[in-house]
Amino acid sequence: MTIVGGGIAGLACAWRASRAGLSVTLLERDELGRGASHVAAGMLAPVAEAEFGEAGRRLLELGMRSAALWPAFARELEQASGTGVDLLPTGTLVVARDDDEARELERQLAFRHSLGLPAERLRASAAREREPALAPTVRLAMEAPGDHCVDPRLVLAALRGACERAGVAIREHSPVAALELDGAGARVNGVRLAGGERIDAALVVLAAGAWSAQVEGLPAHARIAVRPVKGQILRLRDPSGPGLLRRVLRFQGGYLVPRGDGRYVLGATVEERGFELAPTAGAVYELLRDASELLPGIDELQIEELSVGLRPGTPDNTPAIGPGAVEGLVWATGHHRNGILLAPLTAELVVEALAGVPA
Amino acid sequence: MTIVGGGIAGLACAWRASRAGLSVTLLERDELGRGASHVAAGMLAPVAEAEFGEAGRRLLELGMRSAALWPAFARELEQASGTGVDLLPTGTLVVARDDDEARELERQLAFRHSLGLPAERLRASAAREREPALAPTVRLAMEAPGDHCVDPRLVLAALRGACERAGVAIREHSPVAALELDGAGARVNGVRLAGGERIDAALVVLAAGAWSAQVEGLPAHARIAVRPVKGQILRLRDPSGPGLLRRVLRFQGGYLVPRGDGRYVLGATVEERGFELAPTAGAVYELLRDASELLPGIDELQIEELSVGLRPGTPDNTPAIGPGAVEGLVWATGHHRNGILLAPLTAELVVEALAGVPA
Repeated sequence: MTIVGGGIAGLACAWRASRAGLSVTLLERDELGRGASHVAAGMLAPVAEAEFGEAGRRLLELGMRSAALWPAFARELEQASGTGVDLLPTGTLVVARDDDEARELERQLAFRHSLGLPAERLRASAAREREPALAPTVRLAMEAPGDHCVDPRLVLAALRGACERAGVAIREHSPVAALELDGAGARVNGVRLAGGERIDAALVVLAAGAWSAQVEGLPAHARIAVRPVKGQILRLRDPSGPGLLRRVLRFQGGYLVPRGDGRYVLGATVEERGFELAPTAGAVYELLRDASELLPGIDELQIEELSVGLRPGTPDNTPAIGPGAVEGLVWATGHHRNGILLAPLTAELVVEALAGVPA
Repeated sequence: MTIVGGGIAGLACAWRASRAGLSVTLLERDELGRGASHVAAGMLAPVAEAEFGEAGRRLLELGMRSAALWPAFARELEQASGTGVDLLPTGTLVVARDDDEARELERQLAFRHSLGLPAERLRASAAREREPALAPTVRLAMEAPGDHCVDPRLVLAALRGACERAGVAIREHSPVAALELDGAGARVNGVRLAGGERIDAALVVLAAGAWSAQVEGLPAHARIAVRPVKGQILRLRDPSGPGLLRRVLRFQGGYLVPRGDGRYVLGATVEERGFELAPTAGAVYELLRDASELLPGIDELQIEELSVGLRPGTPDNTPAIGPGAVEGLVWATGHHRNGILLAPLTAELVVEALAGVPA
């Protein structure tokens, strides 16, 4: 079988499929794990992310299932690769900065309680007791004690190691131009690389992230519209070490994720700008403004990196995981802002789907 | 003769000394032009920079002399190297954003007029006529029509080329550990590299920027205290091309320099932090905040680079140019915020000083 895309989704699928006994070839257009996965902050936060509406309900269900899989996934991955992935039980604190935001947060709390989700209402003073570096501008907070985080770059390194040990054939710098179907267009039978090379495959997993819709060859009814959703993100480091913030901090317009060693990830914009990859003055300004208003101590943090990622977004921003209209083709894309969270579940669902395809 | 330091001061001295017939060896600890010169914005702005007081008066006189040398220096350098340096006749606009700043700017205008310096008082409406992208928050402005700018990276490349063509012996990655003096400590007779190698030299120019005081070997009475003064700076690019701003824009806390091709340099902090080279969240936030308040259009600019330079500062922040207490040793350091402006004059004064030393 062939997997198109070497981000966290493709790598997780490759590792799990290979452990399930399949012979796996992984094709990556660039280098493994250099797309959105490399830029992601790594929040495992289905409760904090929960949204109203039908799509929100579906995403919440997927997110809760995948969050429950993460501890075992991380443990097995660390054993398989010999690399730690820093899954930290930080919990998440969502804060409101003014009365408007506080009223909205009350609504969000009521919504979570109606679903039986673990979310605690905290008065400003209680929030500042738990995170003393918070500014007095905080009006209200919600703690999601089960929403943790992981370091995506360590996960990528571990997945690479685990795939190599499991015998996955990894081919970097091998962009896939098109899927090849049988004469009737009903079944996939291979992929064609941009260089012209053809690779036979009765099973193909399309995990190409924001580039998923650029793979040609599918009839119109079998395509899934995936667009890039730009996210700008900063990586900061506290020269005086860890301790400024212990929980993941979320606010309207962004979040701050502590890595546990004095490093922090401050993100992220959500922009519709096509494949544009440049950081912009206005976005960086707003991220720094909001974060330093809430946590004045970040002013002294060093900026280690300024990066841009392209999340894969479907029309309703819910992921496309599982079999589609063409036999032998399994989707693992469209993870939008939840690619890291959904990786274990994606791999599980994809391996199930692969097992269900008649060979 | 030997020059210690391959920034703009050392390179300009090397080129001019070589053209004056001297045999020049240039020693650089890292690579040529990778220190403060590489980070500098390149303002040639003696009028906008003019400061009250004795040190200010001395700096103004040096700055005016060097600004007058720049056009011919640039022309000759371009001819000698075959490389353009983009000396742009932009002029400079200094703006006040509130009544406090406007009152201070009136005082600055009166000060410049008392010295006969070219500086025009502009009402906010007139300033916005000249630079339509300025925000309505501007209260008052001063135009210094003779304060231009140059691209320091092009100047560095041109100086390298001119030095090579003139036969300067350039040795990169050759940090100088100490000056070597004669037995009486009255005359320099060489330098010792960090690796131990000794180079004979009856004439030594010390142009090591912020690292000047780390060169050992001078008796206490002959030393000049030079400290690093940290500056953080952003390089921006307008994807829609040039035109947002034509003049150099200065404001309390920073400046924005247009390169003429849609690129802009936004700087700079002035920080006492030793040899620390990391950009910080608070500094970048404040630069972006001030600039976007004044010129809202910069929000859409792309951030191409975030860099830190270490300016060499003497106790009164005026440069140390010329012979010191030890015969054969000539200083060309301590240029603080004016290294690019003062390069032509520094080279001229150093070559004069070298000619005056008995061989």
